[in-house]
Amino acid sequence: MGQDRGKYDFYVGLALAVSSSIFIGGSFILKKKGLLRLARKGSMRAGQGGHAYLKEWLWWAGLLSMGAGEGANFAAYAFAPATLVTPLGALSVLVSAVLSSYFLTERLNLHGKLGCLLSVLGSTTMVIHAPQEEEITSLEDMAHKLVDPGFCVFATLVIIVALIFIFVVGPRHGQTNILVYITICSVIGALSVSCVKGLGIAIKEAIAGKKVASHPLAWVLVLGLVACVSTQINYLNKALDIFNTSLVTPIYYVFFTTSVLLCSAILFKEWGHMGPDDVIGTLSGFLTIIIGIFLLHAFKDVSVSLANLAVSMRKEERAFPANANGLAAHATYKVLRNESGEEAEERE
Amino acid sequence: MGQDRGKYDFYVGLALAVSSSIFIGGSFILKKKGLLRLARKGSMRAGQGGHAYLKEWLWWAGLLSMGAGEGANFAAYAFAPATLVTPLGALSVLVSAVLSSYFLTERLNLHGKLGCLLSVLGSTTMVIHAPQEEEITSLEDMAHKLVDPGFCVFATLVIIVALIFIFVVGPRHGQTNILVYITICSVIGALSVSCVKGLGIAIKEAIAGKKVASHPLAWVLVLGLVACVSTQINYLNKALDIFNTSLVTPIYYVFFTTSVLLCSAILFKEWGHMGPDDVIGTLSGFLTIIIGIFLLHAFKDVSVSLANLAVSMRKEERAFPANANGLAAHATYKVLRNESGEEAEERE
Repeated sequence: MGQDRGKYDFYVGLALAVSSSIFIGGSFILKKKGLLRLARKGSMRAGQGGHAYLKEWLWWAGLLSMGAGEGANFAAYAFAPATLVTPLGALSVLVSAVLSSYFLTERLNLHGKLGCLLSVLGSTTMVIHAPQEEEITSLEDMAHKLVDPGFCVFATLVIIVALIFIFVVGPRHGQTNILVYITICSVIGALSVSCVKGLGIAIKEAIAGKKVASHPLAWVLVLGLVACVSTQINYLNKALDIFNTSLVTPIYYVFFTTSVLLCSAILFKEWGHMGPDDVIGTLSGFLTIIIGIFLLHAFKDVSVSLANLAVSMRKEERAFPANANGLAAHATYKVLRNESGEEAEERE
Repeated sequence: MGQDRGKYDFYVGLALAVSSSIFIGGSFILKKKGLLRLARKGSMRAGQGGHAYLKEWLWWAGLLSMGAGEGANFAAYAFAPATLVTPLGALSVLVSAVLSSYFLTERLNLHGKLGCLLSVLGSTTMVIHAPQEEEITSLEDMAHKLVDPGFCVFATLVIIVALIFIFVVGPRHGQTNILVYITICSVIGALSVSCVKGLGIAIKEAIAGKKVASHPLAWVLVLGLVACVSTQINYLNKALDIFNTSLVTPIYYVFFTTSVLLCSAILFKEWGHMGPDDVIGTLSGFLTIIIGIFLLHAFKDVSVSLANLAVSMRKEERAFPANANGLAAHATYKVLRNESGEEAEERE
C-alpha cells in the first residue's frame, strides 16, 4: 500500500469517524425532541410503557440517524487505525451537548463549555499524532495478526478477566460498584473492535471482488462480533439501569477507549512505527479528552457561570467572598488577609 | 548551526525554562512559609509595615529562589525559541499550587488538580510541537530581524496601542476594567521578550569571546529592556493593587503569552518552518494550558470534591440531587424523570 493510498484511507476514516459522531450525537436530540413533543400532546410517556412514539416521525429520524452513525463508525474502522477511530467517539458526547443547548434550550453550563472545548483540543492532538498507515489490508493479514502470541495472551487474559467479573465479582458487587459492569463491557469491547476491524477489511475486499465468504475467518469474526456485542449491550444496560447515566457514560468511554488502545497496540502494532513524540502526543490528547468529558458530565447539575465568578473580581470585595447562585465560598476573611499581606510583601 | 547543535540548544533551553518555573513556583512557598512563621512568632505583619521578615532565612531563601528562577528564564530565551519558553511559565503556577498543598497544607481542590493536569498536558503538547531550531545566532542576525518591515509595523502598533491605553483608556477605565492595565503589560511584554532574547544571544556571543560591547545594538537592547520592564512592573502592580490576584494572574498569563507568541511569529518567523500539524498542535497545547490555568484560579474558593459528586452516583438518589457542601443542584425532579424516560426508551 503506497504512502498516498494510506493518507487517502486515513482521511476517509477520519471523515467517517467524525460524521459518525455527528449522527449519533444528533440522534439523541431527535429522539428526545420526539418524546418531548409526544409529552406535550399528552400521550402516555414511554417511561410508563406507552408506544405512541412509534407514530412520531422525529423518533424515527433519531433511530435512522443512530443507525447511520453506527454504520459510519463501522466503516471508519475499515479505513483508519482503531487508535484514531475509537477516541473520536468522544465527539458524539460533544455534538449532543451542543445540539441540546440549541434545539432543546438546555443550558450548557461553564463546565460543559470548557469540557467541549477540551474534547475538541484533545481530539485534535490525537488526530495529529495517531498512526496514519493501516497495518492490515486483507483477511490473510488479519489471520496472521490473530495468531500472534502477544495477541493470544492478551485475548486469553481479556476473556479470563471478563469471566471472573461476570461470574464471581458481578453477583457480589455489581449492584453497588459502578466499575464492575463497565469493566466487563470495556474489556469485551476491545475484542468487538478487533472483530469490527477485521469484518470492515473483509467487506472492503468483497467490494473489490475477492471471495471472502469462503474464508473461515470471516465467519469466525461475525460470530465473535455477535457474541461480544450482545454481552456488551447486556452489561451496559445493567450498568445504566442501576447507576446514573452521567457517570456511566464518561467512565465507560474512558475504560472502553483505554482497552481498545491497548488491544490495538498489541494486535495491530499500530504503535510500533510511532516516534516517542507521537506516543506522548496521543496519550496527552487522550487524557485531555478524558478531562473534558469529566467536566462535561460531573458538573452537569452544578450552576456556575462566568458572571458568578466575576462577582469576586475587585479586591475590595474579597472580604465578602462571592456567595452567589450555587457558589459557596469557603475562603475566610482571615485567609484572604494573609494573602494580601504576602502580596504587598512581594511587590516591595 | 547544525541539526545536532540545534537539538542540544533546544533541550538546554527546555531544561532552563522548566527549572525556572520550579524556582519561581518554589519561591512563593518559601516566602509565604517565612511570613507565616513570623506571624506565629507574633512579629508585626509585613502587610502592616513590619520589616521583621528581613531576619527570616526562609524569606531570603524565597528571594534567592526567585532570582535564580528569573535568571534561568532569561538564559532559557538564549537557547530555545520564545514560542517554547514563554508558555512554559504556566508551570510555575502549577509548581506553586502543588507545593502549597504539601508544605502549607493548603488543600488543592478538584478543579485545581484538573487544572494542574491540563497545564502539564498542554505544555507537553507545546514542547512536542514548538519550533526546535533557533532562528538567530548572533547580534548581526538580530539587527537584521529588527529592521524587517513586518516587525517595524508590529513594534509601532504595539507602542501606539500601549500609549493609547496609558494616556487615554487607563485614566478613564483603569480602575474599573481589569483588562486595561493587563493589556498595557502584555503588549509591552512582547518587546521585553524580544530584548531579552537579543541580550541572551549577545551574552552567549560574549562568552564565546566575541566583542559585543562595541555593538550599538547591545546597548539599545539594554535600554529597551529597562524601559519595557519598568513600565510592565508599574502597571502590573497597579492591576494587582486594584483587582484580585487570582484573576490578574491567569488573564495576564494568557494576554502576555499570546502577545509574545504573536511577536515571535513576526520577528523570528519561528512559525515559518512549522508544518500545519505543528501550528495546530502548538495552538491546541496553548489553549489547553489556558483552560488549565482558568480552572486552577477561577474555582479557587469553590469547594467541590469527588466525594461531593459521588453523592449523586446511584440512580435511586437522582430524585434527591446532591446538595452537599457548596454544590447547588439545579436539576429538578421533573427533568430527571424526563431523562429516565428517554433512557428507558433508548434501551428498548
